[in-house]
Amino acid sequence: MRMVDLIQKKRDGHELTTDEINFIITGYTNDTVPDYQISAFCMAVFFQGMSERECADLTMAMVESGDQIDLSAINGIKVDKHSTGGVGDTTTLVLGPLVASLGVPVAKMSGRGLGHTGGTIDKLEAVPGFHVEIENDQFTKLVNENKLAVIGQSGNLTPADKKLYSLRDVTATVNSIPLIASSIMSKKIAAGADAIVLDVKTGAGAFMKDLEDSKKLAKAMVDIGNQVGRKTMAVISDMSQPLGYAIGNALEVKEAIDTLKGEGPEDLTELCLTLGSYMVYLAEKASSLEDARNKLQEVIVSGAALETLKVFLRSQGGDDSVVDDPSKLPQASYVYELEAKEDGYISELVADSIGTAAMWLGAGRATKESSIDLAVGLVLRKKIGEFVKKGESLVTIYSNSENVDQVKEKLYDSIRLSNENVEKPTLIYGEVTK
Amino acid sequence: MRMVDLIQKKRDGHELTTDEINFIITGYTNDTVPDYQISAFCMAVFFQGMSERECADLTMAMVESGDQIDLSAINGIKVDKHSTGGVGDTTTLVLGPLVASLGVPVAKMSGRGLGHTGGTIDKLEAVPGFHVEIENDQFTKLVNENKLAVIGQSGNLTPADKKLYSLRDVTATVNSIPLIASSIMSKKIAAGADAIVLDVKTGAGAFMKDLEDSKKLAKAMVDIGNQVGRKTMAVISDMSQPLGYAIGNALEVKEAIDTLKGEGPEDLTELCLTLGSYMVYLAEKASSLEDARNKLQEVIVSGAALETLKVFLRSQGGDDSVVDDPSKLPQASYVYELEAKEDGYISELVADSIGTAAMWLGAGRATKESSIDLAVGLVLRKKIGEFVKKGESLVTIYSNSENVDQVKEKLYDSIRLSNENVEKPTLIYGEVTK
Repeated sequence: MRMVDLIQKKRDGHELTTDEINFIITGYTNDTVPDYQISAFCMAVFFQGMSERECADLTMAMVESGDQIDLSAINGIKVDKHSTGGVGDTTTLVLGPLVASLGVPVAKMSGRGLGHTGGTIDKLEAVPGFHVEIENDQFTKLVNENKLAVIGQSGNLTPADKKLYSLRDVTATVNSIPLIASSIMSKKIAAGADAIVLDVKTGAGAFMKDLEDSKKLAKAMVDIGNQVGRKTMAVISDMSQPLGYAIGNALEVKEAIDTLKGEGPEDLTELCLTLGSYMVYLAEKASSLEDARNKLQEVIVSGAALETLKVFLRSQGGDDSVVDDPSKLPQASYVYELEAKEDGYISELVADSIGTAAMWLGAGRATKESSIDLAVGLVLRKKIGEFVKKGESLVTIYSNSENVDQVKEKLYDSIRLSNENVEKPTLIYGEVTK
Repeated sequence: MRMVDLIQKKRDGHELTTDEINFIITGYTNDTVPDYQISAFCMAVFFQGMSERECADLTMAMVESGDQIDLSAINGIKVDKHSTGGVGDTTTLVLGPLVASLGVPVAKMSGRGLGHTGGTIDKLEAVPGFHVEIENDQFTKLVNENKLAVIGQSGNLTPADKKLYSLRDVTATVNSIPLIASSIMSKKIAAGADAIVLDVKTGAGAFMKDLEDSKKLAKAMVDIGNQVGRKTMAVISDMSQPLGYAIGNALEVKEAIDTLKGEGPEDLTELCLTLGSYMVYLAEKASSLEDARNKLQEVIVSGAALETLKVFLRSQGGDDSVVDDPSKLPQASYVYELEAKEDGYISELVADSIGTAAMWLGAGRATKESSIDLAVGLVLRKKIGEFVKKGESLVTIYSNSENVDQVKEKLYDSIRLSNENVEKPTLIYGEVTK
């Protein structure tokens, strides 16, 4: 088999066999197929696409390029959730305790944030004492006992995907749905998921800005999951503005606690109920999506979800008293309000630049080496479609520095007002539950 | 400027500026733009094409990547001819003396053959004593005096093209008309041509098998030439079978001599008259293409073309008595006939496999390091459309080995007969003289 012939085959619009895809990915992992052939291949895929079968083969070839996490010691169907990234996305913090309290095992392997996107581990570390440095055996034991534990990423998972992603990033081949879909799915499968729930973000603050592309991506991932025996469902949700109000680590923990108490932001609550229903249903802890949603609402009302959160935090060294008294979470020294300069309806809240403003405060990392400040961040006071009067607060800024001029300027640039009535954006644009 | 943005721009179908194209080619030549970005770029060009202006810019960027031959010491308009390759193509040997005898300066920089394609220097070295190892000053002097000299390739011409070609060869991006056209044109321009005549081969034995593609390539090259101030004309000629009868170095020299005497094969003569007319016309030695053709026919009839050949061979150390007595050329020890196994009309003469059979006899090089046998080769006895009776010779085989079984088998495989009448193929499919 010669790589040049496989590039040509894809270039000319033909379907590659399983063996051919394995040859490409194995060769790339072992350095017997060079970067310059892979980049030409990726560009050919950009133009010619891949069939469902090819995407599934590519996914599994990447899964098999490295270690695979074995979660078989954990009882039950392990359902993993993945979001394609966004700003102020607190869903994981809410969903974990929520579905775990219905007996769904949540064995979460998580990462840290980079740039304007937050990471679940960073957020959880805002709880004093909480840590993810636990042994694999302990992790398994905790999930079996409490149905919820979080551990840092370890092992050499999907090295082919890592190598491929770095190459695609510099060769203008990132934006290919078959390549994005197989990249995401390979990571979830290597991490041991039996079933997968996907939250595909769409809009200005998302990786996929276009709704049609977001739908195609969701469908491509669900197809891959089903082809390789992992039941998969996806929701396409709005990221034209940040989800919820809080952006920043301790602030998002507080917002997650509020949501588990039934007092959270409407959009965050609704998205968590939708994604949570999928997780409960796929874990076979409910007979239908409606049944799952009802059960989730019950554990919020009964306080069972909040109790699961406490047990989880305590089990990993965290101070669970923050749940009843969130003032024990790290607090910023200075609080400022961003006052509206005029009356108007909020028409735009550019999620990624708001995320960047929070990063400047210290809530996020500019580079992998940066340290972060868990206390700082932003809380939106108005969302798209709401009316604001001149002088009213648009955003509350929690800072450990007295000088927030640059942050304010960035926020003013990120928020647009309109004289005319603006419709509240749709939260959920579509679902793929095939 | 970032290469990844330029790849994306081309990928999305936009036109690159002159500066952007220079950035790509300069960066690649200087190793500041890596192979893996260039291969992705070439694949994007494969799908999105390039405008006439982009092709011209790419051509000149490659010309400027290395040395450029200065032919200004040679009087007159230097017209270079280029053929896109083929089997038994003796046109250069015929055209040089033919147009030189009308005062057109032919300052030919030539190469050696590889694989089933012959090289002009190899062919000329079949003339005892002839050599191309001459100094640049001597070369200039000979062209000014005799209007014809041949020298080996020297200097670091179009290094960007060489690098690009090697990369395209292994990334399935060879077959892109803008890239092929600028590659060919950059080499001709760097070699100092004022005007260019192109012979684009089409059919089974050619690089371009498809007529429409051959026409597009011809048009792309003529467009580039005219954009960069080099008058350029092209002919699209048949390579469904070898041109002329002879394939092999000494055998082709003899055929060229016959043709300059007016006794050559019909197709070779006709193609030389067509290409020669372009050369004479572009060199401004005739008022029209018709006038040029008449003058060429005159120098054949008068013997002037043959005389020019003798002077040329003598000036570069060759024994010019071979012209009157071709038996002084290297002779093979064994001569065999390939007898037809049945009656029929010749329907196929697969040019590249016939070229391969000649290479096996020793007429061509399997690798750059191989040595060649100037005496051996093939002479076709029948061409497509001719009738052959069982036992009649299809091909005469000139060999220095007694065992030609493998060669015969290859030739039988390359020649197909039909019971029904077969039309003689068209020789010239089109001309681009804009």
